Amino acid sequence: MKVGIIGGTGNIGEGLARRICISGKHDVIIGSRDPAKAETAAGGVTEALSERGVGFSACSGGANADCCDADIIILSLPFDKIESTIEAIGKEKFENKVVVSLINPMLRYPEEKCFLHDSPAETSAALAIKKMLPESAKLTTGFNNVAAGKWMRLDEELDYSVVVCGDDKDAKDTVRELVADVSKLQPLDGGPLKMSNIVESITPLVITLAMNNGLKDVGVYFR
Amino acid sequence: MKVGIIGGTGNIGEGLARRICISGKHDVIIGSRDPAKAETAAGGVTEALSERGVGFSACSGGANADCCDADIIILSLPFDKIESTIEAIGKEKFENKVVVSLINPMLRYPEEKCFLHDSPAETSAALAIKKMLPESAKLTTGFNNVAAGKWMRLDEELDYSVVVCGDDKDAKDTVRELVADVSKLQPLDGGPLKMSNIVESITPLVITLAMNNGLKDVGVYFR
Repeated sequence: MKVGIIGGTGNIGEGLARRICISGKHDVIIGSRDPAKAETAAGGVTEALSERGVGFSACSGGANADCCDADIIILSLPFDKIESTIEAIGKEKFENKVVVSLINPMLRYPEEKCFLHDSPAETSAALAIKKMLPESAKLTTGFNNVAAGKWMRLDEELDYSVVVCGDDKDAKDTVRELVADVSKLQPLDGGPLKMSNIVESITPLVITLAMNNGLKDVGVYFR
Repeated sequence: MKVGIIGGTGNIGEGLARRICISGKHDVIIGSRDPAKAETAAGGVTEALSERGVGFSACSGGANADCCDADIIILSLPFDKIESTIEAIGKEKFENKVVVSLINPMLRYPEEKCFLHDSPAETSAALAIKKMLPESAKLTTGFNNVAAGKWMRLDEELDYSVVVCGDDKDAKDTVRELVADVSKLQPLDGGPLKMSNIVESITPLVITLAMNNGLKDVGVYFR
């Protein structure tokens, strides 16, 4: 498959691109508002993977809109950038597409040393994004709770659980296949998209647990 | 320590009593509206533990109010029974007490094969219960996400993560010590009580994951 990562020049986006390409199974296109920046990021991915001396699939860079040629489009942007980005790309480019949100809107409470989910009125970023996309787009969650610091460090396997919620069974199956090809991640069917507020909330919890228990890069396992 | 379990005649309450007594470190008093029922449950705990031929601490039964003599009071009741139970016991009995809520209010959506957190206006059962207790009571979450079916099966160790949220550091430390004495549970400091809506939400998620992935007794690990 071909995977497009909109906003793929951030740490998570680029780490995710590395992890997907190293599987050797899926080509990646990194998208950015600034295509030159995306090309630089893609070059960085290719360079990092070349150094490892093992096979990997192709990574290219382009405009965010170019990501919509892919089979799966991953949204890797802050929540408050999503609506304007979809508008700039053109909503119609997402018709019938499988789209993945790994977005977890959060609020920090520094005095209480914790983070909470910053719920939009729809209860989750995913449900809010669903409204921004055409009805034919098939949105799922995915990769939400993977510790951000772990994506880039290719020497460390990722063996976390990844909960895929969505309202279209085929789209969920497609995303779960992709998840299963990334390091040792364990995809789980998390039911309908209305479950996404719980999935998104786990990220502020794991960050709070790290802060309060002297831990680093806390992940979640459902077993 | 002495641990009181209000509503301790249910499966979770009785399983928890077994698990605490088998540690040999803490006596348990099971409370019920019907003290005779609590005595029967306590007898069942004692019998189940005697059969194992290893040491264990004492388990007795009594009225719910008797649980308030304990050092830690665990509330093991459906959320909609909490307010009337606290009123029947007398709110003043909870003055200065360490109280643990393992309650996760949930709504089932049978058509969509999922469960969601049934948030009270306060965002969590724990925050709602805090309002029902005297200001001097120190409420924490604890044991919320342990798979219900696992409590009673003493041959299976419990090695899940248990997130303890609360606004009083000493109370959290006390509850975390208790958690650490139950099977192989791993207590974690989950920050203030306002984090409890996330902790409570994980239970409907793990039940949904079990339903949708052909799994049984799914638990959660933060690592």
